[in-house]
Amino acid sequence: MSAVPFTRDDYAARMARVVADGHAAGVDGVLVTPGPDLVWLTGYQPTAITERLTMLFLTTDREPTLLVPTLERPDAERADGTAATTVVDWLDGADPYAAASGLLRPDGRYAISDSAWAMHLLGLQTALPRTAYDSVTARLPMLRAVKDANELARLEAAGAAADATYEQILDVRFSGRTETDVAADLADLLRQHGHEQVDFTVVGSGPNGANPHHEAGDRTIEVGDCVVLDFGGLMDGYGSDTSRTVCVGEPTDQIREVHEVVRLAQQAGVDAVRPGVACQDVDRAARQVIADAGYGERFIHRTGHGIGVTTHEPPYMIEGEELPLVPGMCFSVEPGVYLPGSFGVRIEDIVTVTEDGGRRLNNTDRHLRVVA
Amino acid sequence: MSAVPFTRDDYAARMARVVADGHAAGVDGVLVTPGPDLVWLTGYQPTAITERLTMLFLTTDREPTLLVPTLERPDAERADGTAATTVVDWLDGADPYAAASGLLRPDGRYAISDSAWAMHLLGLQTALPRTAYDSVTARLPMLRAVKDANELARLEAAGAAADATYEQILDVRFSGRTETDVAADLADLLRQHGHEQVDFTVVGSGPNGANPHHEAGDRTIEVGDCVVLDFGGLMDGYGSDTSRTVCVGEPTDQIREVHEVVRLAQQAGVDAVRPGVACQDVDRAARQVIADAGYGERFIHRTGHGIGVTTHEPPYMIEGEELPLVPGMCFSVEPGVYLPGSFGVRIEDIVTVTEDGGRRLNNTDRHLRVVA
Repeated sequence: MSAVPFTRDDYAARMARVVADGHAAGVDGVLVTPGPDLVWLTGYQPTAITERLTMLFLTTDREPTLLVPTLERPDAERADGTAATTVVDWLDGADPYAAASGLLRPDGRYAISDSAWAMHLLGLQTALPRTAYDSVTARLPMLRAVKDANELARLEAAGAAADATYEQILDVRFSGRTETDVAADLADLLRQHGHEQVDFTVVGSGPNGANPHHEAGDRTIEVGDCVVLDFGGLMDGYGSDTSRTVCVGEPTDQIREVHEVVRLAQQAGVDAVRPGVACQDVDRAARQVIADAGYGERFIHRTGHGIGVTTHEPPYMIEGEELPLVPGMCFSVEPGVYLPGSFGVRIEDIVTVTEDGGRRLNNTDRHLRVVA
Repeated sequence: MSAVPFTRDDYAARMARVVADGHAAGVDGVLVTPGPDLVWLTGYQPTAITERLTMLFLTTDREPTLLVPTLERPDAERADGTAATTVVDWLDGADPYAAASGLLRPDGRYAISDSAWAMHLLGLQTALPRTAYDSVTARLPMLRAVKDANELARLEAAGAAADATYEQILDVRFSGRTETDVAADLADLLRQHGHEQVDFTVVGSGPNGANPHHEAGDRTIEVGDCVVLDFGGLMDGYGSDTSRTVCVGEPTDQIREVHEVVRLAQQAGVDAVRPGVACQDVDRAARQVIADAGYGERFIHRTGHGIGVTTHEPPYMIEGEELPLVPGMCFSVEPGVYLPGSFGVRIEDIVTVTEDGGRRLNNTDRHLRVVA
C-alpha cells in the first residue's frame, strides 16, 4: 500500500456530501448496503455479502448510522470510516426491517444502493408501505463519479501498472500457447506491478475475440491470430482496465484495416471528452467513426463505463445518457469491432476529465503491435 | 470433477418444479437473477454480476425464458441448463425493463431472487406498477432446500474432504505461528482434497475466537490458546462447512467445561433433527443445553444454515422459523459460546435429514483435541 490512506475525515466528508446531494436530488436519504458504495463511504467491506441486513443510513434527520448484524459489529467498527457513524446492531432472530424502520420516515423517499438485495428492499417496502425508493444510479448517478486528488492518484497508479503489464506481455510467446496461459501471465504481471486483486484477464484469440465477453479458454493461439487483451483489477482499492489488440505474426489487410478503424474511433471518443459534454456524445463520437467505416453493426456494446472502487460503475458512455461530464470523472473509452467467426478488435484507455478536456491514464502504444 | 454431471433434463425438471411450486405458493412466476438460484436452475454463472439485467423467467404462462444482455448471449448459451430455455437478449442502450415487462403479466405477482439487485426490482416496479413481488425466500423458502441424490453425493464428498482437512490440520504446528499461517494451511488442504473454491478459513485464537466472524489475522498463536477452526468452500459446485475447536497444549478447566457444553449442545441439535420438526426446534434444542449451563447470553447467533450451491442458504435453524424439516434438506448445526476477551468455542457439522432422523456429513472427533 503506497497510497495515502483515507482518513475518518475523508469518509465523514463523503457522507456529508451524499446527504446534501441526496437532499438536492429530492430524497430524504441514501441507504447503502455492502459493496462499492459502502467501501467508498466507510472503508468497510464485510467478508461476505449475505442475507443478514447491513445498511448505512445517510439521512437528513440524523447523524450517519450503520445498522449491522450483532456478530458483524466488531469487524464493522474496525473500518476507518465507521468511526464517523453511529453503529447499531440487530441480533439473529430479531426483525432487521423493524430495526431499519426506526431509522426511516414512514413517508420518506430514499435512494438505495443499486446492488442492495431485492429481499432487503422488499423488507423495507413491507415494513413501511408509504416509503418510496429509487436506485442510487437513477437518483444520484454522480455519487462516486467525481474523484478527488487521492482517488485520482490511485487510478493513475493502477493505470501505470496496467501499462507496465502490457509492455511486458508484448515480449511473451503467444503462438503455440493457450489463451489461459497468456491470461495467467497477465494476472502475474498485474500482481507484480502492485495489484492486490485481478478482476479479468481477457485473451480473445482469433474467433474468440469476436465475443466481447469471452475471457480466456483452452484455445491454442496460432500464427496469424488477432488477439484481444483486456485486463484489470484493483490496486490500493482502485481499478485498472485497459485493452489492446495484437497480432501474432504479420496481420492481414483486413485486420490492419479494422484495427485502424477502432484506433481512430477510440481517438475520436477521447477527443470528445471535456467538461459539459454529455456522456452519450463520447459514445456517438467513437461510434460515428466505426459507422462511417461500414462496421456500425459490429460495434455491439457501449463505448465506456466509469471506474473507481469498482471496475464498472457510472458514468456510462452510452446512447441516452445525457449527464454532462465533470472534471474528476474517470471512465473507459473502449470501442470495438467484432466479426463473428473471424476476429475482434478493442482498444481501451481510462480517461479522466480535466478542466479543459480529457487525459488518458493509459499511455501505451495504440497501434497494432506484432507479437511472437 | 468426479461428480456425475447435471444434464439438460435435470435442469429442466428443476425449472418445472419451481413453476409448479410457485403456482402452489400463489405467485405467477419466479424471476431468477445471476447467483446461486440461476446456477442451480441452469448451470449458468456470468463471469461478473453487473448492472446489466440478466433474468430467468419461470412463469405459468410461457416456457422458461432467459433474458440476457446481447454481449453475454454466447456465454449464456454455453451452459448446460440454458438449452432448456428460450434465450432472448437486449442490446446496450435499449431499456431492459421494457424487454422484461413483455414477459410479465401487468398485474402479476412474482417471487424474485433474494440477491437480485434493488435497481432491477425498482426497474420492474416502475415499468409495471401493478405487479407485486416477494423474495424467493419469503415465498418459496424450499426452492433449493431439498437436495436430490446427485446433490447429496456432492455434499457428502465435500464434507469428507473437509473432514480429511481437519484430520491433517491437527498435525500441523499452531504455537508460534500466526492465524493467517494456519488459515493458509487449511486452504491448501481443502484444495488438495478437491475443493475448487475456498470460501472461508476461520482461525480464531484466544480472544479472537470470541468474535464469531473473526476470520484470521496476524495474531501469533500461543500455548494455552483455545482456537476456533471454521472452514469450507465448494467442491464440484457444492459446499462444505465444518468447525472444530482445539486447544494448544493442555486446556484450562474453563476451556474444558465450555467445550463440553458446546459439544453436548451440538449433539442435542443433531438429535432433534427429523422430518416434520420445525427448524426453530433444532435451534431451541441446542440453545437449551447452553442456557442450562449458564451461557445462554454468550450464544449470539442462530444454530445453523442450509448449504448447497452456496455455503449459506435456507433453511435457517433459528427462533421463529417454523418450516418443517423434510428429508433431503442439508444444513449446519453449529452452536457456540463466546467469552469476550477470553476465548470462543464452536462445533459444527453439516447434517442431512433422513426418513427417520438426521445424518451427519462431517464425522471427525468432536471432543476437545490438543494440538502443538
